[in-house]
Amino acid sequence: MTEERRAALLAALPDEADAVLVTTLVNVRYLTGFTGSNGAVLVARDGSTTFATDGRYAEQAKAEVGDVKTIISRSLGPDLARAGGRHGIHKLALERHDVTLAGYDKLVQAAGGYLTFTDAGEAVERLRQIKDADEIAHLRRACAITDAAFHAVLPALRPGVTERDIAWRLAAAMKERGAEGTAFDSIVAFGPHSAIPHHQPTTRPLQTGELVKLDFGARVAGYHADMTRTVVCGRAHEWQAELHAEVREVQKRCRAAVAVGATPADLNQLAHDLVAGTGNEPMHGLGHGVGLEIHEKPFLVQKSEDDKLAAAMTVTVEPGIYQPGRGGVRIEDTVLVTGVGIELLTTSPRDLLET
Amino acid sequence: MTEERRAALLAALPDEADAVLVTTLVNVRYLTGFTGSNGAVLVARDGSTTFATDGRYAEQAKAEVGDVKTIISRSLGPDLARAGGRHGIHKLALERHDVTLAGYDKLVQAAGGYLTFTDAGEAVERLRQIKDADEIAHLRRACAITDAAFHAVLPALRPGVTERDIAWRLAAAMKERGAEGTAFDSIVAFGPHSAIPHHQPTTRPLQTGELVKLDFGARVAGYHADMTRTVVCGRAHEWQAELHAEVREVQKRCRAAVAVGATPADLNQLAHDLVAGTGNEPMHGLGHGVGLEIHEKPFLVQKSEDDKLAAAMTVTVEPGIYQPGRGGVRIEDTVLVTGVGIELLTTSPRDLLET
Repeated sequence: MTEERRAALLAALPDEADAVLVTTLVNVRYLTGFTGSNGAVLVARDGSTTFATDGRYAEQAKAEVGDVKTIISRSLGPDLARAGGRHGIHKLALERHDVTLAGYDKLVQAAGGYLTFTDAGEAVERLRQIKDADEIAHLRRACAITDAAFHAVLPALRPGVTERDIAWRLAAAMKERGAEGTAFDSIVAFGPHSAIPHHQPTTRPLQTGELVKLDFGARVAGYHADMTRTVVCGRAHEWQAELHAEVREVQKRCRAAVAVGATPADLNQLAHDLVAGTGNEPMHGLGHGVGLEIHEKPFLVQKSEDDKLAAAMTVTVEPGIYQPGRGGVRIEDTVLVTGVGIELLTTSPRDLLET
Repeated sequence: MTEERRAALLAALPDEADAVLVTTLVNVRYLTGFTGSNGAVLVARDGSTTFATDGRYAEQAKAEVGDVKTIISRSLGPDLARAGGRHGIHKLALERHDVTLAGYDKLVQAAGGYLTFTDAGEAVERLRQIKDADEIAHLRRACAITDAAFHAVLPALRPGVTERDIAWRLAAAMKERGAEGTAFDSIVAFGPHSAIPHHQPTTRPLQTGELVKLDFGARVAGYHADMTRTVVCGRAHEWQAELHAEVREVQKRCRAAVAVGATPADLNQLAHDLVAGTGNEPMHGLGHGVGLEIHEKPFLVQKSEDDKLAAAMTVTVEPGIYQPGRGGVRIEDTVLVTGVGIELLTTSPRDLLET
């Protein structure tokens, strides 16, 4: 599987490149299976591949990268560039969005005037947009665990519980159901905190009549789920029910527009216009790709230049309306683009639940 | 406090620089107090400071960065560079170890030929080595929670428990005691897995007579603790007791050498020589600084060019001996360099405990 991915990467490289040096860790994982915290990989035009990591991961690399040639190094990029140079590589494509200026200085030094460099662009990130069957299975499982955790934690949303308590319960519920961890630090926001799009949980106790915004997800085999639901502790006030209904309608209409051939920036514009149409101010993008990273291509944001949606992409659809000092509502699902619209991977109720 | 840090940074800048653009997220936190996931800060020679983040963090920035001027942007670095240019900055120092080649292209474009760039080096990382009283208090608390979690989890090390179970119990024990999270994904390694320096927990069940290596820590207010202990399930075999005694002696002698004025590379060489003296092969560096990052300056490794140790630095001392296929032992403490040697911040027993 990783071999096919490397072949696809070579096909996407600029013609002039004899090889590509992949240094973005999550891209290294995608191309080799390596899950450690320090690795890089050189893929040459003839398909020959060299992986590098440090001594801490020598054993793990044997188990994970299989029969790919592996070198143990303290200076991964420069050592791979040198190895490539010895094997006839003259023009090496780099991930310019990952290589730092200081890292580039070291590559130039290692190249010794023999190698020159070109840009690989975000070729691996673009490949990663289209999920294969195994990846979809992992995402499906991560989303199912996320749904189950939502249901498990709802009864705990009683007056007096704190945001941090709920964040911890979500993590525990996902872990108990087989998640390897949380997809990101859960956002748990009570009352006025729900108006802060990315709120960090505090020790604030929940009070009757407050909105509760939960943005969280499970991680399975490196793949991330992402879901937001907003509920109320006790009975909803009228303004809360109206706000929630507005967001639910915006989210529904945006979901209906997500399809093969849709343009990311246009989808974002739709959400922007729908939110503005409610008389509220749009605050953030409509969504993002999700997979080995919690935020990845395609980005459904203003000025996005990402590819049009294609089958087997997985993206979030997450409009929100926020009224500072009062409260906010966001409803978010992780969805799979299919040949016939989308499949919802997260399926928890989108009604305004009263706990 | 953050204002003093920014003043110290200006004093460490190259004379030619009119301002510094700090983009490394943890350095931004150190200089402003901002804890979100997207921020950058421009500090000018006259002390005037401009912080930038995106719309998701507008509210949080108000609460965290106080009266520092804040701009909301989708393109933090370029927008800060433009703002600097408008205020008479000609020469801007960059963190070349953080700015990517693609990011640099955007900065050059934003500069419009008006600004030129120079290297800020790792000036903030060097400042961060010396901890102030508040930072030491956070580290002390994180280490105390780590010690308490070790004691809490020891009774669970019974035959049949899995590595993943123990990793989760460690996380729960730290959380219950007030940690905001784990400092990193805990390493829990049973039996032969203990010979893998950085092992990821599996569903392997513990068996009587196996080594158990636990490398973990708590995070408090952004500060990381780091401790490793190796124990045995049941009674220790003679080879296990010998291996453990060797590592304990190496660690003790290395701790004794950690003091104001010691050179990081020399400390690592001492550990290397002591491990080699036991007839085993040295596998990794002796340790690293610890603070807002789990691994930070000074690095106690081969070829380290980091500063000599000074009072109020916090570092780990973590020699290990690994016998592939059989087992390994590592003993690690987080220590504070003081005027008179060190203070141990992690204090759990270093004997070979039999659970």
